[in-house]
Amino acid sequence: MADPVVPSSGVLSPLGLDAVRLSPGFWGDRVALNREVTIAHCQEWEEREGWIGNFRGERPRRGREFSDSEIYKLLEAMAWADHPGLPALAETVAQAQEGDGYLNTRWSGSRYTDFEWGHELYCYGHLIQAGVARLRVHGEDLLTQVAVRAADHVCRRFMEGTRTCGHPVIEMALVELYRATGTERYLEMARRFVDRRGLPALADIPFGRAYYQDDLPVRQAQVFRGHAVRALYLASGVVDVAVETGDEELLKAVEAQWERTVARRTHLTGGMGSRHADESFGEDHELPPDRAYNETCASIASIMLSHRLLLATGDARYADLAERTLYNMLATGVALDGRSFFYANPLQVRVPAVPLEGVNHAPEGGLRSPWFDVSCCPNNIARTMASLPAYVATSSDDGIQIHHLTPSEIRHGRLAVRVETGYPWTGSVRVRVLEGGPGGITLRVPAWASDATIAHVPASSPGAPLPDGPVVRPAPPGYVSVEGPWRAGDEIRLELPMAPRWTFPDRRIDALRGSAAVERGPLVYCAESVADEPPLGDLTARVEPPVEHEVDGVVELEVAAALGSGGEGGWPYTPVAGGRAGGPDVTLRLVPYHRWGNRGPATMRVWLPI
Amino acid sequence: MADPVVPSSGVLSPLGLDAVRLSPGFWGDRVALNREVTIAHCQEWEEREGWIGNFRGERPRRGREFSDSEIYKLLEAMAWADHPGLPALAETVAQAQEGDGYLNTRWSGSRYTDFEWGHELYCYGHLIQAGVARLRVHGEDLLTQVAVRAADHVCRRFMEGTRTCGHPVIEMALVELYRATGTERYLEMARRFVDRRGLPALADIPFGRAYYQDDLPVRQAQVFRGHAVRALYLASGVVDVAVETGDEELLKAVEAQWERTVARRTHLTGGMGSRHADESFGEDHELPPDRAYNETCASIASIMLSHRLLLATGDARYADLAERTLYNMLATGVALDGRSFFYANPLQVRVPAVPLEGVNHAPEGGLRSPWFDVSCCPNNIARTMASLPAYVATSSDDGIQIHHLTPSEIRHGRLAVRVETGYPWTGSVRVRVLEGGPGGITLRVPAWASDATIAHVPASSPGAPLPDGPVVRPAPPGYVSVEGPWRAGDEIRLELPMAPRWTFPDRRIDALRGSAAVERGPLVYCAESVADEPPLGDLTARVEPPVEHEVDGVVELEVAAALGSGGEGGWPYTPVAGGRAGGPDVTLRLVPYHRWGNRGPATMRVWLPI
Repeated sequence: MADPVVPSSGVLSPLGLDAVRLSPGFWGDRVALNREVTIAHCQEWEEREGWIGNFRGERPRRGREFSDSEIYKLLEAMAWADHPGLPALAETVAQAQEGDGYLNTRWSGSRYTDFEWGHELYCYGHLIQAGVARLRVHGEDLLTQVAVRAADHVCRRFMEGTRTCGHPVIEMALVELYRATGTERYLEMARRFVDRRGLPALADIPFGRAYYQDDLPVRQAQVFRGHAVRALYLASGVVDVAVETGDEELLKAVEAQWERTVARRTHLTGGMGSRHADESFGEDHELPPDRAYNETCASIASIMLSHRLLLATGDARYADLAERTLYNMLATGVALDGRSFFYANPLQVRVPAVPLEGVNHAPEGGLRSPWFDVSCCPNNIARTMASLPAYVATSSDDGIQIHHLTPSEIRHGRLAVRVETGYPWTGSVRVRVLEGGPGGITLRVPAWASDATIAHVPASSPGAPLPDGPVVRPAPPGYVSVEGPWRAGDEIRLELPMAPRWTFPDRRIDALRGSAAVERGPLVYCAESVADEPPLGDLTARVEPPVEHEVDGVVELEVAAALGSGGEGGWPYTPVAGGRAGGPDVTLRLVPYHRWGNRGPATMRVWLPI
Repeated sequence: MADPVVPSSGVLSPLGLDAVRLSPGFWGDRVALNREVTIAHCQEWEEREGWIGNFRGERPRRGREFSDSEIYKLLEAMAWADHPGLPALAETVAQAQEGDGYLNTRWSGSRYTDFEWGHELYCYGHLIQAGVARLRVHGEDLLTQVAVRAADHVCRRFMEGTRTCGHPVIEMALVELYRATGTERYLEMARRFVDRRGLPALADIPFGRAYYQDDLPVRQAQVFRGHAVRALYLASGVVDVAVETGDEELLKAVEAQWERTVARRTHLTGGMGSRHADESFGEDHELPPDRAYNETCASIASIMLSHRLLLATGDARYADLAERTLYNMLATGVALDGRSFFYANPLQVRVPAVPLEGVNHAPEGGLRSPWFDVSCCPNNIARTMASLPAYVATSSDDGIQIHHLTPSEIRHGRLAVRVETGYPWTGSVRVRVLEGGPGGITLRVPAWASDATIAHVPASSPGAPLPDGPVVRPAPPGYVSVEGPWRAGDEIRLELPMAPRWTFPDRRIDALRGSAAVERGPLVYCAESVADEPPLGDLTARVEPPVEHEVDGVVELEVAAALGSGGEGGWPYTPVAGGRAGGPDVTLRLVPYHRWGNRGPATMRVWLPI
C-alpha cells in the first residue's frame, strides 16, 4: 500500500495514496504546489550547495555531516509524488554506496567513530524511508536496492552491541522496511535500537544525555524531553516497534509521554520545542511565545507520531493534535509561493526580520528563507506534503473514517465518496457518495466544535416523492458515524460552528499570563504588522467577539484594542502596576497564523495582552 | 593610584584601594572571603584543569582557546589583593612569552589566523589589566614587564590595518596601561580598535555581526546588542577612549546606548543578556525570567561600565544601577562559601538542579558549581571582589562622594571618615569623622529611597553644652552633601526607608505580565522552595505589605499567597481564563535573591503571579 505507515495491527488501517485523492482546496492546492514547485526548488539548492555532488565524489565535500539525509528526504518526496526526477538522483546516490552496503559521503573512511554527532544511522533512516516509499509507490528499483543493502549492512554491523545513533529515525525506518518486505531482522534491529537507549548507549555531552533521549530507558520516561525532533522521531519508532511486537506496555508509555507533553510542553499552534540553544522542549509550562523555537521538523515529527497513535488506538485526540499542527505549523512552514520556509516558528516577533535572498544561517523564525545551512525543514515539508493524503482517512471493519475534512475523493472497497467543503474557512462539509457500498462513514468532529450537527440525506430515488427534510442530530466532538449501506447520491452533511473564539492559557504558563489568543475553526490567528501598520509592542485587546471579513477567500478577523506609547526611557520596574495601554482605540486585524510573513518583514503576535 | 580605572579627566576621581578600606559587613566580609578562599580555589582548579600547565608547555594543551585569560583574571585578582602567590604564577606565565612579546598557549605557531573566535587580543587585554593592577599596587615587576611587552607587540602588529578581536576587552586594558604609564601609543591603539569596529573588522558569522558589535560603528549604535559581555566590555573601553581623547560625542553615544539598554534590556536584578543560544541581549522588552541568561560576567562588565560613566559624568543613575547589580548579581554569583558560582542567573527556576561535584558543562543557572568548562565567571568575581573598594567612593574638588553605603573607612587628603551601617539590612547610615579636614561629604541616596533624611551632628566640644537635636532634613534621591570643614567626632546620619515594596514591570515586558516582585532597600527578593516546601509552579500572591523577619542577621519577608494544584493533563488552552490559584492560602517566605541556592536544589521565582 502506498502509505508511509502501514501497521500490521491497530484499531485503524491506513488507506494510502491510491485511495485518497485530494481535490483543489486548502491541502490539495498545497500538495500540488509542493509537487510542482517545492520538490524542484529543493533539488536545485542541493545541487547548488554541493550536497548532491558529494555523492559524485566531488571534493572538497560540502555541507554538514548529515547533509546526505536531505537528499534522502527529497528522494522520499519524489517517491510519494512519483516524480520523474527520482531515477537519476537515485543513481547518483547509488554511486557512493560501498560494497558492504555502507553509504555516507562524510564518514567514509572513518566509519562509526562518532555515534553522538555523526548521524550515520540517521542518514540510513531517511534513505530507508525513501526506499520504502519507492517500493510502495513504484516497486523494486535501484533506490529500493540501495536502501535494502544499507539496512542489511546496519543489521550485520549493529545487531549485537550497545550503540545507537545520536539522532533517532532509523527505528521507524527499519520497522517500515520490515512491514514492506516482511524481513523480520529489520524489526528486531529496530527493537534493539529502542531498547538500548538510556542504558546509556551514548556518551555524555554538555547538553546532557536527555538531549538525545539517552538519559533513561524509553519505558521509564514520563514526558518528551531534549531535542524535540529527536524525541518525536524516536517516539514514532517506539510506537511502530510496540505495535509490531504487541508490546502494550511500551505503547502505553508513549501515550502517557504524549499526554503530558501535550498538556505542558506544546504551544497553541501545536509547535513543540521551546528552546533555541539545544532545540529542546524545555521544562513543563516553559512556553515563551517570542523565543518559542517550534522547529518545523518537530511539528512534522509530531504529526507522524500522532498519526501512528491514531492508527494504534483510534483515539480522536491524536487526530485533533495532528489537525492543529497541520494547519498551524506545516501550512506555516512554507510560504504561499512554495519556495521559502520557516525553520523556527515563534508566536511573537518583535522586530521585523531583514529580507534575505540566499542561505539563512540563523533560523530564528522571523523570516521564511529559500534555504538554510541545515535544510532539514524544506525537505521534510516536501516529503510530508507529498504523502499528505495518507493522513486524511483510514478504514476499519466498520467502514471508513475521515479525520481531516478537506476536499478529496476517498475510495475503500466498493465505496467511493467525495468530500466537498470550504473548510477551514467554512464549517459546512458535504460527503457525497459517488459509488455505493457497505460500511459506515465516520467523520471526526474537532474538539473545539461544541455544537456541530450532522445529517444524513439519502439520494432521492427517481420518481419517488421528495423525502422529508433530513434528520439533523448533534455531533459532539470525537467521531460521529453514519451507517451504510450506501447508494450513489447519498450525502452526509456536517455543520461545524465556525465562530471565532477567544482562548486563554493555563495559569501555569508564565510567559502567557494576562493574554489571550483568537482561534477560528482549526486555525490560530495572529496580529501582523508590516510597514506603516500600527506597531504591536504595546497594546491591550478587548475580549469581545471578533468581526469576520473575507479577503480573497481567506477569513480575517478584527478585534478592538487600545494602543499605548509605552513611554520611553527610564527604569522599567516601578511601584505602580502598568494597567492597560492608554492610547487610542484601534481595530486590530488578525490573520491566520499560517499566512503571516507573506507580506514582507513584519512584527507578529498570537497572544494579545488583554 | 591602586584603582582599576584612573581617568585623567571627568567629574569624579577614583579614590583607590589605599584610600578606601572595607570593614566587616556585607561587602567587607565578601572581599575577605574572596581573598582567603576564592582566589586559592580558582588557582587550584586552573592547575587541575591544566590551564596553568599550558604555560609550562605541558602537552596536550588543555582548555578552551581563551583559557589563558582565566589565569590573567586570576593574576589581576592576586594583584589587587597583594596575594603572595602572584610572583610564582607570573613566572609561569612569562615562560610562554615569545621574543617579540607574542604570548598565547593556544595559537602559538598559527598566530592571528582567527580573529573572530581566536581571542588572542582578548587574552592580552586581561593580561594587560593584570599588569596594570600589579603596577599600581606593587610597582614594576615581571608581570608588568610581560604585560608591557605584550602591549608593545600588539601596537607594532596592529597599529596599521583593519582588524580587531571578536571579543573586546583589549580597548579598556590599553587605555588603562596608557593611564598607568603615560605611553600614548597604547591610547592610540585602543582608539583605533574602537574605530575599526563595524566598518566591519570581522567576518560575518551565523550569529550575525551584531554578536560581536561589528554590525555598525560604535557611534551609530542605539543600544547594546549581541553578546552581552562583549558589548559591555567594548562600551567600557569606548568610555575610556572618549574620556582620554576628549571625545564628547563618543561619550554621549555610549550614554544613550546605556539609557535605552537599562530601560528595555535589563532585568530587575541588573542582569543583562536574555538569550542562552548566543549569550546575547535579545530585543527590547525581551526579558524572560526563566530563560534569562544574565551571565555573571555581563553583570561585572555592567558594573565596570556604570562606574566609568559615573566617574565621567557624576550622574547618580550610574551608581544606582551599579548598586543594584552589585547586590543582586555580583553577590549572587558566588555562594556563601566562596567556592561555587553561578554562570547564568535566571529569575525563575522551575525544576531543582541536580547537585554536581565537578566541572559544570551546562551553565544553566539553577546551581552554583565549583568550576565550568568556561570559567570566566569565577575568575571575574575574584578580580572584581579584590578591587571592590575602588567602587565605593570618589573625590572631586568639592570633597568626597560615598556611592555605596557599606562599612568602611575612607581617607582623602586630611579627611578620614568611618561609615557605620547595617545596610542593606538596615537603613541607618552613620558617617563619623575620624580625622578632620576640609571639603564636603556627599552621600548617594538610592533612587528607590523616596523619604530619606539626613542630619549633621557636630561633635560636642569638651565642656560645651549639649547641642540641640540635630537638624534633620529631607534627602531626595540622588546626591546629598554636607559641607565641611570637619572636626573629628562630627557625624552625618542618613536614614533610608527600608519598608519592603512591591514592584511592577513595564507593560511591554510580555514575559512578566500579571506578576510583581518584592524589593527591600537595594535587594531583590525571591521565593525559594527546597525539599518539601510548597511548590512554586502555581501560586497567586496578594499585593499586601510583606512582613519582615530577621533570621541570622538576614531580613526575610513573608507574603500571603494562594497555591493551586493547577490541574493535570488536558489541552492547556481553554475558552475560560485561568483566574487566581484556587487552592489553600499559604505564607510565602521570600529571601534576598543573592542568597538563593545556598540550601540545596531548589525552585525559585522573583516575579510572583498576582
